Amino acid sequence: MDRPRHQGMAKNTNMRWRLPLVCLLWEVAMIVLFGVFVRFGPEADAHWEEEKKEMNLTSDIENDFYFRYPSFQDVHVMIFVGFGFLMTFLKRYGFGAVGFNFLLAAFGIQWALLMQGWFHSFKHGKILIGVENLINADFCVGSVCIAFGAILGKTSPVQLLVMTLFQVTLFSVNEYILLNLLHVKDAGGSMTIHTFGAYFGLTVTRILYRPNLEQSKDKQGSVYHSDLFAMIGTLYLWMYWPSFNSAISEHGDSQHRSAINTYCSLAACVLTTMAFSSMLQKKGKLDMVHIQNATLAGGVAVGTSAEMMLTPYGSLIVGSISGIVSTVGYVYFTPFLESRLHIQDTCGIHNLHAMPGLIGGIVGAITAAAATEDVYGKEGFIKAFDFTGEYQTRTPSVQGGFQAAGIVVSLLMAFAGGAIVGGILKLPIWGDAAAENCFEDAVYWEVPEDEESDVYHMHNPDKPASP
Amino acid sequence: MDRPRHQGMAKNTNMRWRLPLVCLLWEVAMIVLFGVFVRFGPEADAHWEEEKKEMNLTSDIENDFYFRYPSFQDVHVMIFVGFGFLMTFLKRYGFGAVGFNFLLAAFGIQWALLMQGWFHSFKHGKILIGVENLINADFCVGSVCIAFGAILGKTSPVQLLVMTLFQVTLFSVNEYILLNLLHVKDAGGSMTIHTFGAYFGLTVTRILYRPNLEQSKDKQGSVYHSDLFAMIGTLYLWMYWPSFNSAISEHGDSQHRSAINTYCSLAACVLTTMAFSSMLQKKGKLDMVHIQNATLAGGVAVGTSAEMMLTPYGSLIVGSISGIVSTVGYVYFTPFLESRLHIQDTCGIHNLHAMPGLIGGIVGAITAAAATEDVYGKEGFIKAFDFTGEYQTRTPSVQGGFQAAGIVVSLLMAFAGGAIVGGILKLPIWGDAAAENCFEDAVYWEVPEDEESDVYHMHNPDKPASP
Amino acid sequence: MDRPRHQGMAKNTNMRWRLPLVCLLWEVAMIVLFGVFVRFGPEADAHWEEEKKEMNLTSDIENDFYFRYPSFQDVHVMIFVGFGFLMTFLKRYGFGAVGFNFLLAAFGIQWALLMQGWFHSFKHGKILIGVENLINADFCVGSVCIAFGAILGKTSPVQLLVMTLFQVTLFSVNEYILLNLLHVKDAGGSMTIHTFGAYFGLTVTRILYRPNLEQSKDKQGSVYHSDLFAMIGTLYLWMYWPSFNSAISEHGDSQHRSAINTYCSLAACVLTTMAFSSMLQKKGKLDMVHIQNATLAGGVAVGTSAEMMLTPYGSLIVGSISGIVSTVGYVYFTPFLESRLHIQDTCGIHNLHAMPGLIGGIVGAITAAAATEDVYGKEGFIKAFDFTGEYQTRTPSVQGGFQAAGIVVSLLMAFAGGAIVGGILKLPIWGDAAAENCFEDAVYWEVPEDEESDVYHMHNPDKPASP
Repeated sequence: MDRPRHQGMAKNTNMRWRLPLVCLLWEVAMIVLFGVFVRFGPEADAHWEEEKKEMNLTSDIENDFYFRYPSFQDVHVMIFVGFGFLMTFLKRYGFGAVGFNFLLAAFGIQWALLMQGWFHSFKHGKILIGVENLINADFCVGSVCIAFGAILGKTSPVQLLVMTLFQVTLFSVNEYILLNLLHVKDAGGSMTIHTFGAYFGLTVTRILYRPNLEQSKDKQGSVYHSDLFAMIGTLYLWMYWPSFNSAISEHGDSQHRSAINTYCSLAACVLTTMAFSSMLQKKGKLDMVHIQNATLAGGVAVGTSAEMMLTPYGSLIVGSISGIVSTVGYVYFTPFLESRLHIQDTCGIHNLHAMPGLIGGIVGAITAAAATEDVYGKEGFIKAFDFTGEYQTRTPSVQGGFQAAGIVVSLLMAFAGGAIVGGILKLPIWGDAAAENCFEDAVYWEVPEDEESDVYHMHNPDKPASP
Repeated sequence: MDRPRHQGMAKNTNMRWRLPLVCLLWEVAMIVLFGVFVRFGPEADAHWEEEKKEMNLTSDIENDFYFRYPSFQDVHVMIFVGFGFLMTFLKRYGFGAVGFNFLLAAFGIQWALLMQGWFHSFKHGKILIGVENLINADFCVGSVCIAFGAILGKTSPVQLLVMTLFQVTLFSVNEYILLNLLHVKDAGGSMTIHTFGAYFGLTVTRILYRPNLEQSKDKQGSVYHSDLFAMIGTLYLWMYWPSFNSAISEHGDSQHRSAINTYCSLAACVLTTMAFSSMLQKKGKLDMVHIQNATLAGGVAVGTSAEMMLTPYGSLIVGSISGIVSTVGYVYFTPFLESRLHIQDTCGIHNLHAMPGLIGGIVGAITAAAATEDVYGKEGFIKAFDFTGEYQTRTPSVQGGFQAAGIVVSLLMAFAGGAIVGGILKLPIWGDAAAENCFEDAVYWEVPEDEESDVYHMHNPDKPASP
Repeated sequence: MDRPRHQGMAKNTNMRWRLPLVCLLWEVAMIVLFGVFVRFGPEADAHWEEEKKEMNLTSDIENDFYFRYPSFQDVHVMIFVGFGFLMTFLKRYGFGAVGFNFLLAAFGIQWALLMQGWFHSFKHGKILIGVENLINADFCVGSVCIAFGAILGKTSPVQLLVMTLFQVTLFSVNEYILLNLLHVKDAGGSMTIHTFGAYFGLTVTRILYRPNLEQSKDKQGSVYHSDLFAMIGTLYLWMYWPSFNSAISEHGDSQHRSAINTYCSLAACVLTTMAFSSMLQKKGKLDMVHIQNATLAGGVAVGTSAEMMLTPYGSLIVGSISGIVSTVGYVYFTPFLESRLHIQDTCGIHNLHAMPGLIGGIVGAITAAAATEDVYGKEGFIKAFDFTGEYQTRTPSVQGGFQAAGIVVSLLMAFAGGAIVGGILKLPIWGDAAAENCFEDAVYWEVPEDEESDVYHMHNPDKPASP
């Protein structure tokens, strides 16, 4: 059965050669590049047994694996189940949400291992990888998943792979500028992941503006069970966000602190989201869209500052504000963006990632600028901001300035990159669907014919319902 | 569309001002109280770098974060996904189950950090928090999630927040009496979490007795897919229960032992639950209600004794018995409680938490009373029961007596607290729904109109099923 | 309501006495055997406090619990949620998929603790268990879950318990031959878990061949939401597979390396699966069956070699190939197996576990044979292959030969064992359903009557849709 109807202005959405070609060529490229460049880092290499002695480590538990692997797995769940299921809220795009997210993330992490590896783990001509690289690759792909949220339902899998290729590249450049050139702290990625990813995605969807999208309006909503599937994504993102923000922080108190700050921020965010969701509706009813998304803004908004001495009450304040901003965004900004600025933002990433990401960058800059040796302790102060080597003389207020510069750079990279990549994706060769077939799995997926059986029932109302 | 029909005796369930007011006022209170009282504990504070040296710790891995964070995340999943999805079994209350659980738990963990902090982590006028506090806050909220199970579908979100406020307070008092005054061991919370939470919730639902609840009988059942959603909750509770019972045990062998005992008890519980579920039905068919709930009784029933030398076969025995008791409870006790005692227990928490909780308390008392230096080793004996300081001379049998006293105290606190809180919740100001609108998401949630499309199909049987 | 229709050749599927009897008798047997044999291992025993000093361990974190518990929990999720939900893809067998998997795994882990304990952890007449035993028990049960995939929907719960009893026994014997007699490496179980489990299950389903299975053809497919439930299983298997393959590797670099290799292999596998899924369909549409299953082949195929110096690019190659083989298998081999060889393989375990398992065994043999001291370092080389004691003089190429022998032994054990167990399961006493009632939950489960309400709607099209 061909579900997409009105094939009047039908486009060719057949993926038979395009998708396999892109997947296979790129995978071969990955194999070749990994073959040339990627090797195990010292803590994953069988030589570790000897290395350990040289480094005077007395126990295998000193391996970075044990400091970071549990957090890595949580982050991994966020990327694949968290983002994947969060986007299943659409009534007929669950396969695309989970499946395309799976595809782009699986490609993205390979390419990110290379790109980030060249920038950060390149030694003697080889990229040496360990568990921290895996986390960073997942982080990088997180920014692609965010951008995917803006164009969800309107793009072909080939377009998504092309976007992933470019976005991972640009992410890595931006990250290098922030972390290495500006010497900015951003462990939870408010700037590098959320601000960059969201404004990149919003720019792309602006370029890909579809004036006739109301033709698929009936499919842009949710059904009862699709909203429950989406809550699986929401809750895993919410629960594991403390791991996200602490995954690559320094060992010890930094990881510990990041987790606590994020836990507090997220808890507060839930209350203000519920409050405003109810308040902004005439009948005071809660809206699942807000609960699914705005409750997460608290995690985004402490992404930069969680490892700093933000303090638990500071986290509550940031979380509270971001929940309000995000919910208000869903009610007022999203319709405005669509009608006035022609930004069609399927998942509302402007509310969940863009604005909270900016808040996160700003809070990070302020928290850094306000840091004192008194609050951090002498050694803690140096360790927290890595004020060593050429940065030995940097003061907190200067650090705050650089943090702020990091926001600006991320925004510029996102707008410029998004414009270029959006232009590339607009080429009529990628097999995207016509407006009336958007948000519809049957375009790219074999979909089981469950509705047919309903029709069957209707024609045979006297027969017992088939199981 | 207004789904709730028969608005004859309709109550005002509009949450527009009540819910936002409560959420925002309380969140502001949290911010103020956190600002005054809550600070990072030493292992999460940036001063750790210096503290480490004073404590002669050679490695960052000695930070409590690495001992407890993986278990914390598992517990976190149990509270939000475990309890949340377990309660989605109702056909039209999935949003309320997951969403209200999310709301009350997010508020509860903040308030619990304060309440438990004042009792247990108060130093020099400040509450110093670390990962163990986060776990304990989750535990405390677990008891509220349990009580929520009894009143599921019959209360407004404001009522739930009010209940959470009081229950967390009472929980903390009860916990203080047990752990500090009676010096009782209860790492997995058979008494403090399950017995207290369940009898508290049962008392509340008794006070809130609704004589006309059969008016919403059609919505008290499940549908096929809602039962599968509930199994997500069940399995995460089941799988992560070893983490729950071991999360705050002493480092080393205690955590290790707790996990093994819980693993064994839960495995045995599944078999006896399946056996009795099949046996108690004329056609021998399995009942999803039993599988979803009674399989978990084994985790509850070793909550006190898991960290003791219960031994694997002891765990199998306890798990087997609790599965039987719980399943029999669903078949015989729940109808009895409703018809005779007017206790309407939506999720059957009497079977899953109350009775197994009592078993857990009793098993704990017996296991403690039976402890010998021979079984625990000289140092292990002292460490296991913390027989130090003023408790240096306490004998196992005395400890067993105090453990038993802990059960009694928990019961008394639950009954008294539940009666008072139930009375407060009965006030006609909280916006709870009329009996015929119970178990119906449309009262408090914007619900997508998927059924409408079915109606639409029926009127147009010749049209192809819309996707 | 009795859903199964056409009761003409109906069999007696009433489980009322058979299932309870088996469950209770076996649980009693477990209790007795645990009572006689199973005790806590030294790291979970309260004597650890003293043992620690004797072993000169300075910190509680040296307890094996902290090296393996996070991986254990991931493996636990894979067995219960991963396999359980992966099999919910059938439109009317979700309860059976999740519920029977729960039942057989809960029994299996207890029996596996005993069987594997006698072979590997038996000291002074006692089986001493710790977290590694829990992981191994889960692993062993994994092979039963795999075999369950072949006979899904066609067997009674009693049959599944009988199969579990025998398969766990045979698994343990096979594992002992491989690990102890052949001194083979197989940490992720390509041979012991996947090859053995899959060919065992395929042999059983061959023996249980049902010529009239097309009578339940209408229930062998999926519906939209059942495919999304299955994706929960897929993603948890995919995400946690790095934990699976590294869970029982040596501490330190081995665990670290296993996780990285598996991560890489799985990422590559997704791309080739998507490519071939699209390529092999005329319209280029993706098939959920492939995405749900073949994307996991990369984890199976590095099960033996992940802890070796396979290298990241080696992992990409293995993952790419296994994704292709698995997808091609679903399209071409599965129909062939059914029509020509009378092997009815419900979940396609031949494609997901059998062929990738063989690839995994072969890759392991080659990687072992190619090992050099140069690549592993002198100490790393000995540690990686445990070339100590009587194996001190074994060379890599000899090790490769033994690895290959391990594949052959696993296959022989699977065929012989499967034939015997299949014969036992064919006895007409276990209460399996008639062909027309296969893949139907209503045979063994109380199923909520949601379809009825649809019928009700149809007769009352003017009534508003009931919520």
